[in-house]
Amino acid sequence: MKAAVLGTGMVGRTIAARLAELGHAVTLGTRDPEVTLARSEADAMGTPPFADWGNQHPAIKVAGFADAAVGAELIVNATNGGASLEVLAQAGPENLDGKIILDIANPLDFSNGMPPTLFVKDTDSLGEQIQRAFPGARVVKSLNTMNADLMARPGQLADPGTVFVSGNDAEAKAIVSGLLQDFGHQDVIDLGDITTARGTEMLLPVWLRLWGALGKPTFNFKIVR
Amino acid sequence: MKAAVLGTGMVGRTIAARLAELGHAVTLGTRDPEVTLARSEADAMGTPPFADWGNQHPAIKVAGFADAAVGAELIVNATNGGASLEVLAQAGPENLDGKIILDIANPLDFSNGMPPTLFVKDTDSLGEQIQRAFPGARVVKSLNTMNADLMARPGQLADPGTVFVSGNDAEAKAIVSGLLQDFGHQDVIDLGDITTARGTEMLLPVWLRLWGALGKPTFNFKIVR
Repeated sequence: MKAAVLGTGMVGRTIAARLAELGHAVTLGTRDPEVTLARSEADAMGTPPFADWGNQHPAIKVAGFADAAVGAELIVNATNGGASLEVLAQAGPENLDGKIILDIANPLDFSNGMPPTLFVKDTDSLGEQIQRAFPGARVVKSLNTMNADLMARPGQLADPGTVFVSGNDAEAKAIVSGLLQDFGHQDVIDLGDITTARGTEMLLPVWLRLWGALGKPTFNFKIVR
Repeated sequence: MKAAVLGTGMVGRTIAARLAELGHAVTLGTRDPEVTLARSEADAMGTPPFADWGNQHPAIKVAGFADAAVGAELIVNATNGGASLEVLAQAGPENLDGKIILDIANPLDFSNGMPPTLFVKDTDSLGEQIQRAFPGARVVKSLNTMNADLMARPGQLADPGTVFVSGNDAEAKAIVSGLLQDFGHQDVIDLGDITTARGTEMLLPVWLRLWGALGKPTFNFKIVR
C-alpha cells in the first residue's frame, strides 16, 4: 500500500519504519522537508535530529504534507494532537478525499503543565474533529492507547493486549485491522463509529498515571472477557 | 471489619453481600430505612425491590446513612456519583473522620441522555471532591472500572484482569488492597494519590462503548506489561 505518515517525531518515524519493513511504500510528511533534513539538534522532546534516522531508512521518502498525501492510499496522522487539524489542512482536503486517515494522535494539552490534560473530551474527540473537518476522508482512530514501540511491535510483550478501532467506514476499519494484525496485534476490538474515539482518547490520563506507577511505558490495555 | 455500604442499588447490594460472605459485619446505609424496606416495586433502573433481597441476607443490617457510618471502620460509597457528596454529608463528617471511604462511584451525568457523560473529569475527580469535602476521611478510589458482579467476584473471568487503587493514605490503600485480594482480585495496581482517580474515572466512556461492542458487561481492563 502507498502510505503517507504525517509527522517526523518518534511516533511517525516508528510507524513509518514498521510500514516500510512490511513492504509498504512510505513517504514521511513534514512541514518543510529542507528544514527537517537540515536540523542537527535534538528537539524539545529530546528526539534525535531527523537526518541520521533518514540515512538509516533510505527507502522512506520525505516530502511536504501535500506531496506526501497526494499519492497515498493510507494517511497516518502522527502529528501532535494540537497541530493535527492544521497539518491535515496543509496536506489538502483534495488529497484526503476517499483516503483512509489512520488517526493515532491524542488531544493533549500541555498548556497547564504536567501531566497534560485533554483539549477535547467526553462530548467530542479529536477523531471526530478530523472526520468533520474532512468529510470526504475515512477516519479510523486506533493505536492511540499505547506507546509508539508497542504500536509497531506489540509482540515484544508476552501478551500484546488489545488495540481498538473506531470509525464510520467498515471497509476502512477492515483494512486498518489487517494492518494492525500485520504489526502483531492479535486482539482488535471494533468499538463502533468515530464517536467511540471519545472513549479511547480518554484512556490517556490513566495511561500517564500507569507510566508513573509502573516506571516504564511498555505496557498495554487488554480487555479480558 | 465493621463496614457500612452506602447505597442499596445493585452495586451496594453486591458489595454488601460479598463483604458479609467474607465474614465482615455489614450495615447497608439508606436515606430512609422504612421507605427502603417498604418499597415493593422495581426502581427506574429495573432493580428489584429491596425487601426480598433483605430477607435473603438477614445478617446484613439496614440503617440510615449516619447510623450505618457511625460504628464502621470502612465506608463504601456505592451511591450514584451525582448523589455521593450529599449522601456522605448526611452520613455526617464526624462519622467519617479517620475512616476509610472506599469510593467505587463514577461521576456519571445522564442529563444529556445516553451514553452518559462525566460531570467532573480530567482536571478533577469525584474521588478528589470527596477527599476535599471530608478531609478527615481516608478516601481510596477503586473498583469503579468494572461492573458490580466483577467487583465482587472477579474470579468468574478466567483472567480477572487488573484493579486500580488511588488515595493519599498508604495504610488505607493497603487495607483496601487486602480486601480486594479477598474478593479475588489478583492484580492490584496502586496508581498513586487521589488525583490519579481522574484516570480511572475517565475509563467509563470506553467501558460503555466496550459494553456495546462486546454485548456483555462482564469484561475487565488488564494491564499487560
